[in-house]
Amino acid sequence: MPSALIFIADGTEEMEFTITYDTLVRGGVQVTSAFVPEPTSSVTTHVSPPAAKGSRGINILPDTYFEPQESGPDKYDAIIIPGGAKGADTISKTPAIQELVRTYLNEDKIVGMICAGSLTALTSKLPKQPLTSHPSVKDSLKDGFDYSEESVVVSNGLVTSRGPGTAFPFALTLVELLSGAAKREEIIGPMVFPPNAPLR
Amino acid sequence: MPSALIFIADGTEEMEFTITYDTLVRGGVQVTSAFVPEPTSSVTTHVSPPAAKGSRGINILPDTYFEPQESGPDKYDAIIIPGGAKGADTISKTPAIQELVRTYLNEDKIVGMICAGSLTALTSKLPKQPLTSHPSVKDSLKDGFDYSEESVVVSNGLVTSRGPGTAFPFALTLVELLSGAAKREEIIGPMVFPPNAPLR
Repeated sequence: MPSALIFIADGTEEMEFTITYDTLVRGGVQVTSAFVPEPTSSVTTHVSPPAAKGSRGINILPDTYFEPQESGPDKYDAIIIPGGAKGADTISKTPAIQELVRTYLNEDKIVGMICAGSLTALTSKLPKQPLTSHPSVKDSLKDGFDYSEESVVVSNGLVTSRGPGTAFPFALTLVELLSGAAKREEIIGPMVFPPNAPLR
Repeated sequence: MPSALIFIADGTEEMEFTITYDTLVRGGVQVTSAFVPEPTSSVTTHVSPPAAKGSRGINILPDTYFEPQESGPDKYDAIIIPGGAKGADTISKTPAIQELVRTYLNEDKIVGMICAGSLTALTSKLPKQPLTSHPSVKDSLKDGFDYSEESVVVSNGLVTSRGPGTAFPFALTLVELLSGAAKREEIIGPMVFPPNAPLR
């Protein structure tokens, strides 16, 4: 069974987190959410994670604390970074996550980033390649990457997307990469999209 | 400021809950989530609500416990019932919610139901009128209502929709009814939908 680790922090965009997590579960992926504390956090003992306060006030209980040594490509097939300005700032500035992003891509695993989460491509010092993001952070990314305005951009293992409105195409792309095209098609019907909804 | 109460229970479809809550907050609506215990629950003291376990395993902390006397149309402009088979079963079979549904509609307030949440129209014994739902519960609803397969159906104050894939059009319709068409248009841009995405 393919598996994915999705990061969550205070300020994560809760639609991007929830749509990705839920759609991956529908797509036969074992998903774990990991709480990333702010870099300035004084928390040193990691017993059980607090609720993450989403960007619009929904409180979500993560499955576990982020532990770098439990998050490597030997444990998961993909890591995923949602947006939300404050949450993406916390996640993208966490050195252990920057290192994981490089390691996953070097080992031909999948790294998903959506919305402001794409800033992690910059902080992880990834080489210039096709990428997209929320328009609000385009200026930070357009020089270091081949910036695209497609809803979903796949550059080898790096999958990027734009915002809550593209979260379904983003999540379905990840399902296809992790579980195959047949599984992707199988789960679309019960989700009841409007006729002619663009899903790529 | 317009306000809305959205119900959540164990088994609620977390995308439908989150997309609706978050989009309404973006649309200038003050949103409160209320936990609805199963009818067989032995919990008698309501201090702080437990996390609701979503249909695909995401744990969400509700803002408050559902208290019928704090949930009337004097307190909110709308009540909203998300889907997810088990969560919708709990919510639709709660007599105090059935009574609220009738009261809100009688007072020309708004009642939103999506996916299996539309079963609450049946359990609340609403009169025959246009309605939609998740296809899986169509057979329970097609005789008592003018069943439609539109993504969103507005029948006076009753707003119904189909599933996670129609949750954005559903939420944007509620924003328009609660905050106006200009607010609806204002929030669509930053959500970054794909070009030509059907949003009604």
